[in-house]
Amino acid sequence: MAETTHFMDIALEEAQAAGARGEVPIGAVLVYEGRVLARSGNRTRELNDVTAHAEIAVMRMACEELGQERLPGADLYVTLEPCTMCAAAISFARIRRLYYGANDPKGGGVESGVRFYNQPTCHHAPEVYSGFAEVESAEILRAFFQNKRD
Amino acid sequence: MAETTHFMDIALEEAQAAGARGEVPIGAVLVYEGRVLARSGNRTRELNDVTAHAEIAVMRMACEELGQERLPGADLYVTLEPCTMCAAAISFARIRRLYYGANDPKGGGVESGVRFYNQPTCHHAPEVYSGFAEVESAEILRAFFQNKRD
Repeated sequence: MAETTHFMDIALEEAQAAGARGEVPIGAVLVYEGRVLARSGNRTRELNDVTAHAEIAVMRMACEELGQERLPGADLYVTLEPCTMCAAAISFARIRRLYYGANDPKGGGVESGVRFYNQPTCHHAPEVYSGFAEVESAEILRAFFQNKRD
Repeated sequence: MAETTHFMDIALEEAQAAGARGEVPIGAVLVYEGRVLARSGNRTRELNDVTAHAEIAVMRMACEELGQERLPGADLYVTLEPCTMCAAAISFARIRRLYYGANDPKGGGVESGVRFYNQPTCHHAPEVYSGFAEVESAEILRAFFQNKRD
């Protein structure tokens, strides 16, 4: 549990840093064999790439570092429930465990929306643990959008 | 219709070329203002990136070329029904029209599986046209997997 809190704290730092760059403040951490292999916030604006969500960013970084296409045995921490695109990418990458903060009823694809890991077209589902730092995760997003409106 | 056939022929060429490189033979073309802005087959093995499906490859190339994050007004042609991940990425990129060949009941996310464009968590749906060159598209895949088994 202390370890989970530690990695989620890093994801929260990445979320804050993303918001400071004008990106939607969501952060992720990819942990493999007990160490942080990649950490990132959203980078869609920076890279002009709508697929550069924090989850996909850390998976691509980790695959590049390891020189492999999939990440069996790796765990992914992210501040918000992954969207449908990321839920499927996490499945394709064979991520072992997914930890996330706040739920996202409007755009999520794990416990919300299409609930991808419960579908017959999903061929690998990670173990899912949610509700970590959900208040902080949601507050970072709320403040960001409030600030944009003001 | 002649134009649609022309662009789907290019997608089929990309599918064949992907198969020759040992990638799952699926090809895509991104058309913007009547011209081909990007064409690619699957590149997941080449790039060690499970998100480098043909659809996402052409969207990334087109966004880089145009220097923008989304592709409103662009049309995407792909030989197989997009998977759940790609269906969502196509939505995020604000693709105008999606043309595809064969259906993919096991892994598709448009007319199969999660039918993403019909879900409340989908906030932009392209116009969808399917069944173009579906026999050729499916045959390229069938031959590829038959060859792998032999």
